[in-house]
Amino acid sequence: MLYSTILAGGSGTRLWPLSRAGEPKFLHPLTGTDRSLLQATADRIRMLSTADRVYVVTGAAHAAAIRSQLPELPPGNILVEPAPRDSCAAVSLACAVLARRDPDAIMAVFSADHLIGDEERFADIIRQAADAARDGYLTTVGIRPQHAEVRFGYLKVGEPLAGQARLVAQFKEKPSRDVAASYLESGQYLWNAGIFAFGVRDFLDELNRQLPHLAAGIARVADAWDGPRRDDVLAEVWPSLEKISVDYGVLEGAAAVGKVATVPADMPWSDVGDFDSLGESLPTDESGNLVIAPEAEVVTRDVKDTVVVSTTDRVVAVIGLDDVVVVDTPDATLVCARSRAQEVKQVVEELHGRGQHARL
Amino acid sequence: MLYSTILAGGSGTRLWPLSRAGEPKFLHPLTGTDRSLLQATADRIRMLSTADRVYVVTGAAHAAAIRSQLPELPPGNILVEPAPRDSCAAVSLACAVLARRDPDAIMAVFSADHLIGDEERFADIIRQAADAARDGYLTTVGIRPQHAEVRFGYLKVGEPLAGQARLVAQFKEKPSRDVAASYLESGQYLWNAGIFAFGVRDFLDELNRQLPHLAAGIARVADAWDGPRRDDVLAEVWPSLEKISVDYGVLEGAAAVGKVATVPADMPWSDVGDFDSLGESLPTDESGNLVIAPEAEVVTRDVKDTVVVSTTDRVVAVIGLDDVVVVDTPDATLVCARSRAQEVKQVVEELHGRGQHARL
Repeated sequence: MLYSTILAGGSGTRLWPLSRAGEPKFLHPLTGTDRSLLQATADRIRMLSTADRVYVVTGAAHAAAIRSQLPELPPGNILVEPAPRDSCAAVSLACAVLARRDPDAIMAVFSADHLIGDEERFADIIRQAADAARDGYLTTVGIRPQHAEVRFGYLKVGEPLAGQARLVAQFKEKPSRDVAASYLESGQYLWNAGIFAFGVRDFLDELNRQLPHLAAGIARVADAWDGPRRDDVLAEVWPSLEKISVDYGVLEGAAAVGKVATVPADMPWSDVGDFDSLGESLPTDESGNLVIAPEAEVVTRDVKDTVVVSTTDRVVAVIGLDDVVVVDTPDATLVCARSRAQEVKQVVEELHGRGQHARL
Repeated sequence: MLYSTILAGGSGTRLWPLSRAGEPKFLHPLTGTDRSLLQATADRIRMLSTADRVYVVTGAAHAAAIRSQLPELPPGNILVEPAPRDSCAAVSLACAVLARRDPDAIMAVFSADHLIGDEERFADIIRQAADAARDGYLTTVGIRPQHAEVRFGYLKVGEPLAGQARLVAQFKEKPSRDVAASYLESGQYLWNAGIFAFGVRDFLDELNRQLPHLAAGIARVADAWDGPRRDDVLAEVWPSLEKISVDYGVLEGAAAVGKVATVPADMPWSDVGDFDSLGESLPTDESGNLVIAPEAEVVTRDVKDTVVVSTTDRVVAVIGLDDVVVVDTPDATLVCARSRAQEVKQVVEELHGRGQHARL
């Protein structure tokens, strides 16, 4: 039986004004239903892991909201970091705590804020990744590129392994647009979606080899986790841990010595990076519009391919526009060309510069 | 010395969600300053009439707001209609009340919700209209058409009179687009801007001739106006008065017998009919944007020829759009292509149909 760990971090700046520092995107119902991204992630995982084998790693600010959204999880499975130290520390913490509870555990890692279009296919792919993990590989899910995306890292596919798994020949950093286009054309590259499966022992071995300081710190924390000195050890060790992503910290180096596999996946997948990708990830109406506004009164008149999101009970009226994003929240309204949706980040920076911290 | 009457009626449906039934457009600061359209109208008139000679005709719902915005007016100069009966009743009421206070009065009539670009020129034109009124003409200000507008009635210009005044050969109803284009090309037609000057006796004579029932009712009301029975007579007479515009009720018929003059005017003028015309009437920034948002935090990023109006202290962020209108009020947000600004009216009807009366 597989263990599953959900990484619930990151604020989602490109989804402002919906997501805020205090209310990150994974807590919002951006799924087309009334389930939050986090809850939808947990729902999907139920096909793979019973609730007692599901873990969440998150920050102190969101722990209460997560317990409230996922009441079925044992409280001890919600691992609260004192401060964010990037994904390598988060994954390592879950691995190390779990290794002390079940040393033979195979663990899958998911992000709390992804949308997946085909849940049966998703479960099948994760099971294949778990099989490759049982063969000793640190295994990633690689998404077949749909376009020349520059926001993601890429996996260069190597020789075939058992089932549909392939060796990962190389990790590639986020490419330029031209390079991304050449990756797309070659058919040799997959998006690194940040979904993994591995034996906790295999992961910790690689962590020890590549990042011994981080591994030692995490080991001290994990040894103390289920005892009375957890907070003391966290306070002492956590601030010294290296801030690095799990991709750069462990997987890139493991791939270089032939220890990383990937399962290519062609299911619809989105990291809900901005409102444009949200509109591409969820079913739209006959005009191509996506409206997520459970309480609002939304009127559209001759509007196409537009995303409307509201968390208020106000009226939102849109007339005669194509390809725009309109987001209405209690203290801010965003109106944006869909093709410019990533620039929301710059607006947040501008507001930061103006001292509008309460709106961020 | 000229008397001036301001007609303060109409809700301005095309300016929703800013203007509402309870808060019509003339009460809003849509002038580029902190003065409301009504106050800006009163400010302009001060070049023509002292405060004791300025009258306002309005409905009971707005009387208190008007007294508060125009504290310099004698309370007795604010004539409150029990219910709207269109502009002929409103103008006739002001005429008849004034005729009993000063039978030789020359009175100019203005709308409370116009923007005028050149106040000196405006005063000069009204003085010329008053001169023609002293010659016995019911005199209109005719605006030289800037484009083939279908929202206005037109005046066909006839033979020259004294000064720059011309006889009005004919009143023309709101034309089709083709007809409006032919009017524009011919140079023979002016927009009927709803700005008038006439001797109160001359106007009442024409009213008597053309609409004797309305004239008799208004006479009964005016006889009782400054006495104890005003409310009783209003209650009895007002509901029976004909609902008709002053253009159709009096001026069209007066023009047919050679009694209407016009002073052609080429000053910048707008009836602030919708947010698009607002953007054309007021000075914009170097990107062509008009932002009226005294309390809001507005961020624009690569935005051109756009109108942003906010009456809240919320954030309004606009990214990568041209030629749009964004209006933010406490309970509604409008996002609209500028070229479709008139369709706001249909959105209001749609909301009406959905029972959203509180937002209208």
